[in-house]
Amino acid sequence: MKNELLSRMDSPAVLKNLTDAQLVQLAAEIRETLCNVVSNRTAHFASNLGVVELAIALHQVFDFSKDRLIWDTGHQIYPHKLLTGRYAEFMTMRQKGGLMGYPNPVESEYDLFMTGHAGSSVSTVLGLKAGDDLLKEKRRSVAVIGDGALPSGIVFEAFNNAVGLEKDLLVILNDNKMGICPRVGGVARYLDRARTAPFYSELKRDVSWLLNKVPIVGDAVEKVLYQTKEMVKASLHGGVLFEELGFKYIGPIDGHDLASLREYLTMVRDLKGPVLLHVFTEKGHGFKPACEDPVLFHAPPPFERRDEEIVAVKKSSSRAYTDAVSDAIYEAMEVNPRVTVMTAAMCEGNKLQKIRSVFPERFFDTGICESHAVAFAGGMAKAGLRPIVDIYSTFLQRSFDQIFQEVALQNLPVTFCLDRSGVVGSDGPTHHGAYDIPYMRVFPNMVVMAPGDEQDVPGMLNFALEYEGPVSIRYPKANVESIARSVEPVRLGQAEVIEWGRDGILIAFGTLLGNCVKAAERLKAEGLDVGIINARFCKPLDRETILRAVAEAGFVVTVEEGTLLGGFGSAVLEAANSAGLRTDHIRRMGLPDTYVEHADRSEQIRELGLDVEGIVRTVLAAADRGSLVVDEV
Amino acid sequence: MKNELLSRMDSPAVLKNLTDAQLVQLAAEIRETLCNVVSNRTAHFASNLGVVELAIALHQVFDFSKDRLIWDTGHQIYPHKLLTGRYAEFMTMRQKGGLMGYPNPVESEYDLFMTGHAGSSVSTVLGLKAGDDLLKEKRRSVAVIGDGALPSGIVFEAFNNAVGLEKDLLVILNDNKMGICPRVGGVARYLDRARTAPFYSELKRDVSWLLNKVPIVGDAVEKVLYQTKEMVKASLHGGVLFEELGFKYIGPIDGHDLASLREYLTMVRDLKGPVLLHVFTEKGHGFKPACEDPVLFHAPPPFERRDEEIVAVKKSSSRAYTDAVSDAIYEAMEVNPRVTVMTAAMCEGNKLQKIRSVFPERFFDTGICESHAVAFAGGMAKAGLRPIVDIYSTFLQRSFDQIFQEVALQNLPVTFCLDRSGVVGSDGPTHHGAYDIPYMRVFPNMVVMAPGDEQDVPGMLNFALEYEGPVSIRYPKANVESIARSVEPVRLGQAEVIEWGRDGILIAFGTLLGNCVKAAERLKAEGLDVGIINARFCKPLDRETILRAVAEAGFVVTVEEGTLLGGFGSAVLEAANSAGLRTDHIRRMGLPDTYVEHADRSEQIRELGLDVEGIVRTVLAAADRGSLVVDEV
Repeated sequence: MKNELLSRMDSPAVLKNLTDAQLVQLAAEIRETLCNVVSNRTAHFASNLGVVELAIALHQVFDFSKDRLIWDTGHQIYPHKLLTGRYAEFMTMRQKGGLMGYPNPVESEYDLFMTGHAGSSVSTVLGLKAGDDLLKEKRRSVAVIGDGALPSGIVFEAFNNAVGLEKDLLVILNDNKMGICPRVGGVARYLDRARTAPFYSELKRDVSWLLNKVPIVGDAVEKVLYQTKEMVKASLHGGVLFEELGFKYIGPIDGHDLASLREYLTMVRDLKGPVLLHVFTEKGHGFKPACEDPVLFHAPPPFERRDEEIVAVKKSSSRAYTDAVSDAIYEAMEVNPRVTVMTAAMCEGNKLQKIRSVFPERFFDTGICESHAVAFAGGMAKAGLRPIVDIYSTFLQRSFDQIFQEVALQNLPVTFCLDRSGVVGSDGPTHHGAYDIPYMRVFPNMVVMAPGDEQDVPGMLNFALEYEGPVSIRYPKANVESIARSVEPVRLGQAEVIEWGRDGILIAFGTLLGNCVKAAERLKAEGLDVGIINARFCKPLDRETILRAVAEAGFVVTVEEGTLLGGFGSAVLEAANSAGLRTDHIRRMGLPDTYVEHADRSEQIRELGLDVEGIVRTVLAAADRGSLVVDEV
Repeated sequence: MKNELLSRMDSPAVLKNLTDAQLVQLAAEIRETLCNVVSNRTAHFASNLGVVELAIALHQVFDFSKDRLIWDTGHQIYPHKLLTGRYAEFMTMRQKGGLMGYPNPVESEYDLFMTGHAGSSVSTVLGLKAGDDLLKEKRRSVAVIGDGALPSGIVFEAFNNAVGLEKDLLVILNDNKMGICPRVGGVARYLDRARTAPFYSELKRDVSWLLNKVPIVGDAVEKVLYQTKEMVKASLHGGVLFEELGFKYIGPIDGHDLASLREYLTMVRDLKGPVLLHVFTEKGHGFKPACEDPVLFHAPPPFERRDEEIVAVKKSSSRAYTDAVSDAIYEAMEVNPRVTVMTAAMCEGNKLQKIRSVFPERFFDTGICESHAVAFAGGMAKAGLRPIVDIYSTFLQRSFDQIFQEVALQNLPVTFCLDRSGVVGSDGPTHHGAYDIPYMRVFPNMVVMAPGDEQDVPGMLNFALEYEGPVSIRYPKANVESIARSVEPVRLGQAEVIEWGRDGILIAFGTLLGNCVKAAERLKAEGLDVGIINARFCKPLDRETILRAVAEAGFVVTVEEGTLLGGFGSAVLEAANSAGLRTDHIRRMGLPDTYVEHADRSEQIRELGLDVEGIVRTVLAAADRGSLVVDEV
């Protein structure tokens, strides 16, 4: 029977009854299952292959029906899902109604937090531990964090607090030498030096074993043992960085050697105070193509394989807004030597590889350090450069305070490119760029833009690079569209009227403009003449054009791919209200006040009523209502 | 002549012509001036006393008309201001139209960034350095950061990137052993261990001196010297933590010994790569009462002094909203053992001292680590506790992403107490809590509340602690008020109608309710019957009550102490719009889309038109307009 063992994994308790040979088979079955899923659809892959043994060993040594386990970020949760009773549903991964590609407490009690953003695992596990201690619950706490997430500032903050609180806490550093891209920075170099150290020696092992086995009969014994360990450690490479911070450091150990993993996990399980166990894993382990190109296989497109060989990767030939923005940045950098670009470990996601290779001196990858990236850009702008901060909308949330203090308050010319604004499809709730319109527009000085189509992109970027202040440009995770028209130049606070309509008007902020155009065509067939405005600016809003629409049109429908709370539609309401205009003929379309579940982006857009059909429906309703209002007056 | 030297300090260049004896006198004059200002009004004090010599030495050794200097956070900027030509205006400190209590580029080119939030100095200085390098500008870059700000995650992110970029960067760790409160956590303990080390020995000094003096004739020489230094260092206490991260570490040195400071600054000035100079200073140095109680004298109330003795501290007997909230938290902790409280180094500011001493096990000071504090609270809530995150509105901006992912998305019962929401007076633009209404209400699951007066506080806190989801409560830096009424219990999404009015209605979200009540009384005398609603909830909004007001009142005026962009007034517009109601009789009062300059809070409230007079004016205008609109229909 295929996946004989895995299909019996109703609960991690099953692991206790497996022989070593069976565990090896189980690992193979997990990898086979991962390959089957991932070859069919884009999903996180190489990082999951890398933690198969670690996940098995963790569930053998701990009892996470009671103990606490957080996989940082959560993209490497797949083996954990397979080990906690979700094999039967596994082929539904990342599909509408199916398993989520991240931890999800709704699926299983073994998933404690729904996550997707990096770095918070140590904080939440420390919080769980502090809570359990106060409630006198005997539970152990474990965070597994990758070396890519490690430099994220919140991790350091959590380490600092964990030492201060002297909590028993196990942090497993899953060191695969990679983020999505190769890792960068001082911590990366530090870990690279650790790579040259041999795996944990017998000597070290004995000391640590002793440390574990001798019951704590008194301070004196422990002290002697601890000092011995300190002495031994000093003569070998050790995690001095972590020890200096106040952690006990054990490692490095081989993350694919099940026996070794079990042994060390058992050893550290009941150590007192915060402990860091350094585990080396190989991203893509067990599947050769993924080991050879872990960047491609981080979350690869669907591929065909035969055994260990990839026959073909189904690369998409479609052009996304990310490509359009990346091209525009590249062209700007060609003509303007003052333009620099910052990414937070998303060189691939932001498609900046060409820029990285052609302009290495003006390309800055800060690692998963969005707060720093923005303040760093502020410094550069102050020095006279024109930095572009290219970060997904959802991750730029981590820079809210730096956007405020280091950029907007100083009125510095930093350009924010907010990729993945709006709904993002199968990554789900943690990854939608739902809030950036409100969070950007609250800051004085900030200009908030969104292209209506691909043709708007270069004009907006060039406008931003000329503008003497901060600018944000948002665009979705979607293929480009082009609206047939004579494109007007981008001017501060000027909307583009595609056409005025006799009956009403659609005002689109962003790339749902395409759906609005198609909806208007459909409505024309139904005898309704609906105009279209490409708002371009949410801030400053084009009061002249938009208030004219509000004042004159029978109905107005605003369309945006962002939350309706405080978003573009609200900006229109505010402007109309300030101008003393009535607003009861305005309808606002956008994201609702809920977390949108994972599904294909097109499914999400449809369910939210933001597809062509949905817009047609809303306009028809508004048109009825519009005439009703007119009758009343 | 009094302050003979200081009055001649038109520019730091003057320092070059002063003898050592004169420099000592200058330091005394600076301290005298600080005492004069601070005894007159609340201002940052002890930290400024601590950096007098450091500021002098920095301006002697560097030329900051060209080189770059950022004082982290910026509250310790006073000596720098005195040394850069601002003595004549110094008595205007923190007053309307006068000098700002933080760096301000408008005042002087020596102030590069307007700051007030901790931790970003290393990032901005690194950005300046990267920018200057790309522009081939030969400028040196220096950040001065306190040990209180050091554990802030962004500092670690910046260190990581600085090492990766191998930039020449000087970070001065101004180690005074204190934040506002005594420091906490692993980094604090690490630095405490460094305290036991002797000041930098002759041996170390010679090596470093050599390092500096030998011109860089080739890698070989530098390498040998560097290795020598490494060897020497290993035998002494050194900043292993920083060295492991990739910084060159020099120190610790005495921050009040001008000669030593000059010598070491000269030595490190042209070292290659990122360098950390560890300087010990004494918070309050040179003024005995401040040394003895640096917590009180961080930013003391006005005091009388005679020479080095304090005669009397003018303690205010007024009760602030901070007191009311702190009392309510205390009472909740008394009855409910599951309630915990988190502060981010603001035990004093949040007035949690009593809670800290009575409930030490349930009081958590994370240090200036707001991101971690919120994720940590998320973990605690998941464990079954009822954590309260008590952080100023402006600083909680640093947790935007954790509020999203670790709390709101998980729908966990964390209570956010947003102190200092609204305008904060003399701290100015960096400290206003202007954005929290929009930034809290965008998240699904989040309940957004504000008490109308002191009587609402316990009810709201108790409601929050019973509620099965995240709740935020905002309140200003202001003295409490009490509106005479029979107070209704706090129920989810229920406003409190103080009274309905015949002519129109005021809807207050928050403590400007008091001004609304007074305005209504005044208006009654003018023959206008204006009702008052205490909104209590911005989310969920009390649709029944508020939409009734919108539908029935001749005019509606919303009043909030937060930005008008996406704020409470916008929430009312949104609700009315969704209900198909007209809104042209609604006026929204709140903070404008500008950065409000420092002044007394009462001055700010008046200038913003949010005082009683301003509300009366707006209502009168709305009333005219309201009748106009009624005429039209």
